[in-house]
Order: sequence, then structure tokens, then C-alpha cells
Amino acid sequence: MIIHIFFILSLVSSISFASVQDFCVADPEGPQSPAGYSCKNPDQVDENDFAFSGLAKAGNTSNLIKAAVTPAFAPAFAGINGLGVSLARLDLASGGVIPLHTHPGASEVLVVIQGTICAGFISSANKVYLKTLQRGDSMVFPQGLLHFQLNSGKGSALAFVAFGSSSPGLQILPFALFANDLPSELVEATTFLSDEEVKKLKGVLGGTN
Amino acid sequence: MIIHIFFILSLVSSISFASVQDFCVADPEGPQSPAGYSCKNPDQVDENDFAFSGLAKAGNTSNLIKAAVTPAFAPAFAGINGLGVSLARLDLASGGVIPLHTHPGASEVLVVIQGTICAGFISSANKVYLKTLQRGDSMVFPQGLLHFQLNSGKGSALAFVAFGSSSPGLQILPFALFANDLPSELVEATTFLSDEEVKKLKGVLGGTN
Amino acid sequence: MIIHIFFILSLVSSISFASVQDFCVADPEGPQSPAGYSCKNPDQVDENDFAFSGLAKAGNTSNLIKAAVTPAFAPAFAGINGLGVSLARLDLASGGVIPLHTHPGASEVLVVIQGTICAGFISSANKVYLKTLQRGDSMVFPQGLLHFQLNSGKGSALAFVAFGSSSPGLQILPFALFANDLPSELVEATTFLSDEEVKKLKGVLGGTN
Amino acid sequence: MIIHIFFILSLVSSISFASVQDFCVADPEGPQSPAGYSCKNPDQVDENDFAFSGLAKAGNTSNLIKAAVTPAFAPAFAGINGLGVSLARLDLASGGVIPLHTHPGASEVLVVIQGTICAGFISSANKVYLKTLQRGDSMVFPQGLLHFQLNSGKGSALAFVAFGSSSPGLQILPFALFANDLPSELVEATTFLSDEEVKKLKGVLGGTN
Amino acid sequence: MIIHIFFILSLVSSISFASVQDFCVADPEGPQSPAGYSCKNPDQVDENDFAFSGLAKAGNTSNLIKAAVTPAFAPAFAGINGLGVSLARLDLASGGVIPLHTHPGASEVLVVIQGTICAGFISSANKVYLKTLQRGDSMVFPQGLLHFQLNSGKGSALAFVAFGSSSPGLQILPFALFANDLPSELVEATTFLSDEEVKKLKGVLGGTN
Amino acid sequence: MIIHIFFILSLVSSISFASVQDFCVADPEGPQSPAGYSCKNPDQVDENDFAFSGLAKAGNTSNLIKAAVTPAFAPAFAGINGLGVSLARLDLASGGVIPLHTHPGASEVLVVIQGTICAGFISSANKVYLKTLQRGDSMVFPQGLLHFQLNSGKGSALAFVAFGSSSPGLQILPFALFANDLPSELVEATTFLSDEEVKKLKGVLGGTN
Repeated sequence: MIIHIFFILSLVSSISFASVQDFCVADPEGPQSPAGYSCKNPDQVDENDFAFSGLAKAGNTSNLIKAAVTPAFAPAFAGINGLGVSLARLDLASGGVIPLHTHPGASEVLVVIQGTICAGFISSANKVYLKTLQRGDSMVFPQGLLHFQLNSGKGSALAFVAFGSSSPGLQILPFALFANDLPSELVEATTFLSDEEVKKLKGVLGGTN
Repeated sequence: MIIHIFFILSLVSSISFASVQDFCVADPEGPQSPAGYSCKNPDQVDENDFAFSGLAKAGNTSNLIKAAVTPAFAPAFAGINGLGVSLARLDLASGGVIPLHTHPGASEVLVVIQGTICAGFISSANKVYLKTLQRGDSMVFPQGLLHFQLNSGKGSALAFVAFGSSSPGLQILPFALFANDLPSELVEATTFLSDEEVKKLKGVLGGTN
Repeated sequence: MIIHIFFILSLVSSISFASVQDFCVADPEGPQSPAGYSCKNPDQVDENDFAFSGLAKAGNTSNLIKAAVTPAFAPAFAGINGLGVSLARLDLASGGVIPLHTHPGASEVLVVIQGTICAGFISSANKVYLKTLQRGDSMVFPQGLLHFQLNSGKGSALAFVAFGSSSPGLQILPFALFANDLPSELVEATTFLSDEEVKKLKGVLGGTN
Repeated sequence: MIIHIFFILSLVSSISFASVQDFCVADPEGPQSPAGYSCKNPDQVDENDFAFSGLAKAGNTSNLIKAAVTPAFAPAFAGINGLGVSLARLDLASGGVIPLHTHPGASEVLVVIQGTICAGFISSANKVYLKTLQRGDSMVFPQGLLHFQLNSGKGSALAFVAFGSSSPGLQILPFALFANDLPSELVEATTFLSDEEVKKLKGVLGGTN
Repeated sequence: MIIHIFFILSLVSSISFASVQDFCVADPEGPQSPAGYSCKNPDQVDENDFAFSGLAKAGNTSNLIKAAVTPAFAPAFAGINGLGVSLARLDLASGGVIPLHTHPGASEVLVVIQGTICAGFISSANKVYLKTLQRGDSMVFPQGLLHFQLNSGKGSALAFVAFGSSSPGLQILPFALFANDLPSELVEATTFLSDEEVKKLKGVLGGTN
Repeated sequence: MIIHIFFILSLVSSISFASVQDFCVADPEGPQSPAGYSCKNPDQVDENDFAFSGLAKAGNTSNLIKAAVTPAFAPAFAGINGLGVSLARLDLASGGVIPLHTHPGASEVLVVIQGTICAGFISSANKVYLKTLQRGDSMVFPQGLLHFQLNSGKGSALAFVAFGSSSPGLQILPFALFANDLPSELVEATTFLSDEEVKKLKGVLGGTN
């Protein structure tokens, strides 16, 4: 019996070295680094840090795009920090659309849970890859390429998407173009869009200049 | 008009350089490297390479564990090769369980689509992180650590899991221990299990020696 | 003397093991992997594989954007394959512009060699970072974010840009939107642009559907 | 002479920029990130940070497994932090065994210094790779796969193992299963072990529930 | 109108999650990690963090090597921290030389802006790759290998070099050998240089011992 | 019984997907990529691919440096390909020395098995870190920095070194300088060594030009 306890104690000391980086639960108060959030003290980590209930409820789709994106990223989902994977939930009401967007930091894979989704991406060679996906179908969108998802069925649609990074980023094209103070003449010069079109959409999306 | 066509042609030539590695759709006939499958000729790639319907159907749960894991990995899901993310579908009939297992190459994040799942993992410090997850709940399992999922509800359960690698690997503990020719005395010496227990489980799971 | 020769020979044999992956000069005939081109036989590699003269000449700016991008990527610049860095040359005639674009696979840093360039990028939070750069000034564009460069001076402008990848990719926004067969109604639904605008620009840039 | 001093001073200022990340000696007081420990102030780093004498002495093998694992990891070996490599020492008394275990974060390579060691690992395909190693023999264990080392000779055995990460982790299977509060019924359901066996081993190894 | 504002607000909240790691502008006051500097509070980041004017002016070449290296690294170029790329400017007066050196952390690619540069590197197999580069020519130097640049033309020469890391490091061979307190007998034993030569160069470059 | 066999077969099919990248045993006949050697057909892999006996015998130290480096790299140690770790054996006869050298692709950690070794490295800031190591002592050498090992005891010495890469590379300084056809005037201009010294050492080490 004494041998057993001795053994356990001696192992525990070596394991405490080894376990330092099994995970790095986000401490939102600490400094961030290029690798993510600082790690919470392991003694204060519990099972709730590794679980997240924020994807259980549909996002609010009462908006212009009739759609919502609900991310499961750190620090809200603290335990996912630094683990190289993350999730999000897509809700698309009838007619809903996730506008053209990119994830600068990761590829995305989508699986349809309900409804019918038309999804596509555009390659560097400007080729379009377009699919209509039914319940259970999945599709992959390579890192950093423009892509979209659109409810092409009758009722609402639901999908989950996963990313190969804890911090994939999300740049929504019409918001990047029209929902900030980038001067209209620069938008026009760098997109070939007309002044009229740019000003109209800045009006709709809250942009200035 | 001539200017436009000239412009388009000149751009296309520079873009053909740039686009080489947007993606690397798996060519199952070519040699593999530590980074994954060889790339299919881009001219033969189409939208079907980026979509996968293999997760649409429930896996067959008429087996010992009353559960099934259906992966969406290359080469079956050819377009996901090298993109640093992948998916799998978990079906758990009533009483079903995904036995203790690890993914040597990636962390995993799970989202429950239907039913109630009790999931847990064990850290290097031998601490247990255990949660009961309802529909829409998610949980993350850090890379390489032992974890399991178990249907703790009444009906069947369904979940999708994502990995931060195109090739996460999957080592199922009872199979690793009892479904091969690892000599019983080595299993016993390295796990502290009794000879009787090892031989019984080798019998059940098809192991020899 | 005999000792020296013996010594040199014995060292050479161990060095031949060690040197295998100093570099991996692209063999355009071999299979590609997610990590890049196959490696040319080291015996056939010479100094010309590590040099590239393709950036010495100004690109042709007689086109719609009055600008040219000349990349120094593999396989044209064979020795750069797999080394995690690459270059390109930007020529901007008076009034020239590199339209909004992204590099899915790398961050970019630019240095102005001649002229005045107004450059900017837009973050995931839709914030605009805009600078007017003179000769010798540099600016960094984080991976995957929309950015542009525009000749804001009187004469022509020249810049070199570097990427933290041998294969950064290049997606030019107006080409991705309007120079392919992505159906107009999908462009419109996913960008909020008007049907009239989309059809006009498809006409200009050679798009269909 | 004045020119030389001037030259040295001017070089030193540029080198101080460049040298920032030659290394990142662990500061155990600072915050950790997913990439490892914070870096100690370089002015306080000396040669002792890069050396470690903790592997010089045999570990205590007076325990259940007649074996000891002594790691050379940060923060004890402060200079190894973030450098992507680490070491450990294995001492196996006569009859000693390192039980089945995994390193979630790195592959391992072992070299036998003294004695005879039977080592093996099990692949994702449940195939067993087993070797008896003599003094000077080495063996590699791919990342995250279950493996073990066992003294199969007459006297004691000594080996050093190296990892391709500064923080490889270490999960010892019988401890993960039986030395914590994971409820017996969950251990049984997820391993197929019998209730009797689980309770016996929990007793031996200090587990509860 | 109310719908639009509601929509914008709801999107902004999800984007604030997503944007956390578009970039990590260096905070020189915070702790460093193996991945680089801590990140400045995003609210305090502006366009000046992503631009750098330090390469606009020629370095001072009134020194022994008639050359200067001006780096564009963090923290001076704060926005480049963690983005995997960096720049430097090389000025070579007539007869100037950048002595043999290595960058431990990245490959380098050079482009000649003015003059004629003879550049070369030596592989692990001790093979020499040597090129004379004119204006506009580029050359790549694989990570960690000894290389040099030498003005082989008549007037002064200017080049920019890029690295596939924000923190490439820079070890200049004659300084590493002769500009510190490494005892002469150790320099001699590890390089085969004569005592006379080592002491002479220690004298020139400020070394001791 | 039928259920069991059915179960095992159904699991095996999913595991065959999952196991593709547990390891990538080097196929020396196949093409190499920037990530390493091509993978041997898994059906032809056996336990011998993961073991290596080449480190069991002392290297031949009857040479100029009274030392030998014996690497355990692919393809000789086929199973280590792509696993991010490797080993080498250092034999130093009395008075033996491993001359100043770098590993461009990995940090190194050394452990002394026998004798006394004086080891040191030089940082980018030209600071020297020097230690005398006894049996069992270890020391780490950060990636790409010049370092050496020297037998500073009375008898012979033995050490093993590990690298955080399967392909660390090895550039031995005096060989890089003096054992090839790099013209003497270039060696002199880029090292500050005298013509006499360079020509003498080229003579000793087999260099030309």
C-alpha cells in the first residue's frame, strides 16, 4: 500500500511537467500573442471551459440577409483557444443568404442539418465551384477564397461549419466594401463599381465617405 | 473591346501561376507525402471534388457498440486533402457508445444534432472533464487525449465532429488493446489488466496471441 | 594526406543524408502535394534554379487597370518552391490600380521603389487602414484580407511585394465577381449589387450568365 | 580604429532587432500562450538556461512499474521552451515497464543506452509494431499512438527519448483509466472491461467512483 | 431603416469575435512568447502600425564593410509581428559586402534595385551556388544556410530582401567568430583557423579572450 | 459471434480511412516534396521500418577532427520520415571536436552518455553560451545558430543529439568555407580572413579556386 501511494506521488510530479500544454484555456484578461489568448491557470479550469451552449439556439434572422452566423470561438468558448479548430452555426430563414465572404485564417467545411443550401466558392483562377446541398451533404471551402451560402429550399435551413483554426476570421464582402469609411472613389477605383451603386449601398449598409 | 480582351488574357497568365495551391484535390493513384495525397490535375477538378454526400446517411449501428463513425476524409472526400480540416458523423443508437479513443493528429470539436450525449476526456494530469450535452451543445477534445461519447438519452443520438487536420487519425482503445496480435502478456504488463480479462476481450474482439 | 582524403570522404557520406531538405527545387513534371511541387533531382540543380530574372522588366500596363502584377513563384522561379517566401513586382502607370484582392495563403509586405502609392486594407471588423506611401516606405497587409494599391502620384509607380509563403495565391475581387460564369442572380444575392451593375461589369470583364 | 568602433556599434543596433527570437527562455512567472511559456528578459539569460543536469541521475524505480520517466521540459529546462524539441530519460529496473502511453503533442524517438528493451506501438489500423532493442538501437513512435517500453533483459535498462516538441505531453493509459474519478460504469462502457477488473485496478492505482 | 440598423448591430457583435486574430500588432511592453510579441489592444491600433518609413533612407555605409543592413522587423515595424513575413534594405557602397551570414528562422529572397550584386550560398553538401545579379534580378537563399552579397559593380548597389518570418534572425559569421569573448583556442579548435589569424581578427572586430 | 465479426469488419473499413497518415515511411524511389520523402505503401511497412541499428556502433574517429557524426535520418531510418524528430550519435576520441556548424532546419538537444564535453553556441547578438557537460548533462542549441562540441575530458566521449525535424540539415563551417570551389577572394571578402589562411585551409580540406 505504501508502495502504491509512493508510486502515485512520484508519477504525479513528472506528469505535472508533461501536462502543461494539453490545452490553453483562454484567459480573456491576459495578453494575447500571435498564437492566441493567454492560458488560464490550469487549477481554475473545469469541464465548463471545454463545452459551449451558444450554438443551441437559432441566431436571429430578422435582418436584411434573413440569416445569422453564430460563432463558437474563444474567448466565449474558452477551451477551444489554440487547439486549431472551431465551429459556427448558420441559420438561414426562407430566402436567407450568407453574403460572399472569406475566412483569412482557415479552410471551412460545412454540413447541412436541415433544408437545402446552394453554396459556392471562387478560386484564384476565377473558376466557380457551385453545389446544391441537401440534408447531410457536406462541402469544403479552401482557405481565404470567396464563398457564400444561400437558402435555395422552401423552409428555413440550418448548417454547421467547422474551421481548421481557433481563429479563422470572417470578412463579409458587402460589409467590407460598403459598411465603413473607405472613400467612395477608392471603392470605385478598386472594384470598377459605379459611383451611384457604391453610394446606394453605403446608404443601405451604414457606410460613410 | 480589344483592350479588354488583351487585359483579361494578360491577367489570366499571371493568375495561373498564383492559383497553383488554392487547393490540392487528392489523387488516390499518386504518391502520398507527409503532407497528404498528391494533387489531381487542376483541369480535372470540378465541384464534385469539394462536396461529399457520405455523411447524409446514418451509419450502421447494428453492432457491439450500437454506434457508428462515418468519416469525411480524403480520398473519399477528395477536395479536403491538405486543407487542415475534416468532419465525421457519429450515430449512437439507444445505449450506443463510441469507446475511449484518440485522434493522434488533431483536436476535435463536437456538436450534438439530436439526443443527449455524455462526453468526456482525460488530461495528461489524469483529470477527467465530463459533460452531458443536449441538442446544439458543443464540446472540444484536445489533440491526442483519450475521450469518449455515450448516448445517455432515451432515443438515438446524432452528432457531427470536426477536426483541425485533414488526416486526424483514430485509435480506438479496446481495439488497439484486444483486436490484434499483441501478445497477452505484453498487454497485461503494460496495462495492469489480468490475464483472464485480456483473454476474454481478445476473444470478443477478434484478437490473437 | 591520406587521412585528409579519408576524412573528407567519410564526412561527405554523412552530409549527403543531412542535406536532403536544404531545398526542394520544383520539378514541374512531378506530382504536386499540399506542400508544393515535387523536388528536382539534386544532381540536376544549379545556381540558375535559385535566381530569377522575370522581375527585371516592367509588366505591360496597357490594360484596363493601367497596372501589372509579375509574380516570382514556382515553377518559373523553381528554387523558391517550399521555402516559405515569394516575391512579386507591381507596375502602376499613371492612374493605375491593383484592384481589391486577397492572398489566401500569406501576408504581404510592400516596399515602394518609385512614385507614390495609396494602399489600404480592410479588417474582419470592417475597419479601413489607409496610407499614402512614398519611395522607400513599406506597408504590411495581413493574410487573407482585402487590400489594394493605387498610383496616387503623377508619374508611374513601382513596388515590390513579398509574401510569407511560396504559394500565396491571388484572388482579384472584380474578376472573382464578374469574369466567370457565376450566375448574375447569385452575384446579386450575395453582394447586394443591382442586376444592372452586375450585368454591365460582366460585359466589361468577360463574364457570362 | 574609430571606424571600427563605429562599425561595431552600428551593427549592434541592427542585430538587437534581429536577435529577438533566437530563443525564448521560459519565464515561469509570466503568462503562458498556446505557443509555450513567456520569454525571460534576454538580459537575464545565461548559459545555465540552456543546460540541464536533471537527466544525470537515475530516476527512482522503487515503485509498482519498476521504472521512472524523468523529463527535460520547460520550465525546469528553461531554454528549451518554444524550440520544438525535448528529451526524457527512461530508467527500467529488472522487470520494469513503462506502461502503454501516448504523447499527444509529438512523435518520439528512443535510443537504448544500456540493457535490452522490448518496445512497440499500435497504429490506427490496430496493427502492432514490435521490436527488441539492444544497446545503441533506436526506434520511432509516431505522434499520438499508444506505445510502451519494457525491460526484456536481465539487468536494468536505460534509454533516452527525444520528442519533436517542447511540450509533447504524456498520457499513461492505466493511470488515465484507473487513477482518477471517472465513474466505473463509464470506464466499463467505454473499454468493455468488467466491473470487477475496473474496481480492482482503481483500488490499486488510487482511483475513486 | 430600423431593420438595417438592427442588422448592422447584430453583425458587428459576431464580427467582433471573429476579428480577434486578423493581426497582432506588437506591444513592446507586454511579455513575448515563442510566437512573437504580445498584441497591442486593437482599439489602439491605427494605420501607422502597418506602415514603416525606416527603409526609405540609405543605411550608413561608412564602415568596415562599406555596407548596411536596415531591418523592418517588430517592434519598430509593429504591425508585422506574427504575420510570417518581413523585409530589410541592403545598401552596398562601391566595394561593399554583406559578410557571410545566416538567418536561423527563415529563407530569404532578394531583389536588386540598383547596381550589380554578386551573391551566393553554400548548401549542407558544401556546394556553392553563385550568381551575378543585375537590377531587377532576384535570388533565393534557403533557410539557415551561409550566404553573402557583394557589390560587384562600379557604383553603389541597393537591394531589398524579404524573409518568410517576422523574426528571421541574423548571424553574421565574422562577428560570431571574432566579435565576442569566445576563447581563441575554442575558435581555433572549431574552425581550424590559426592562432595568429584569430587574434588578428579579434583585434579588428573587438573580440576578447 | 456473427455480430462480432460484422462489427469488426465494419470498423476496419472506417479505420482504413483514418489511418492513412499515422506515419509516412520513406520510399526512397518515389518523388520527394518539401514535406519529405514519398510514403511507402502501408502494406509493405513492417516493424523494421521504425527501428534503426545504425547508431549502435561508434563512428570512425580516425580523421582530422578525431570525431564522427552518425545520423539517424530518412531514408536510412525510413520510419522517421515526416515525424518531426530525428537523432544522431556523436563520437569524440580524445581531443576530438565537432567543428562549428549549424542545423538550418531544427533546434538540437544533446545528452552526454560518456566523458566530458565542452559545448557552446553563439546567438544572433554574438553572445557566447558555453558549458562543460558531464555524463547525463543535456544542453539545447537553438535552431540555425553556430555551435560546437569538443571533448574536454581525458578519454573518449559519446553523446546523442536529437532534432525537432526529420530533416534538420547540417552545415559544417570549415567545410562550407574551405572544402569547395568558392573562390578564395570571395571567402576572404566575406569573412575578413587573409588570403594566406584561406589558401592554407583550402589545401588541407580539399577546396579549390
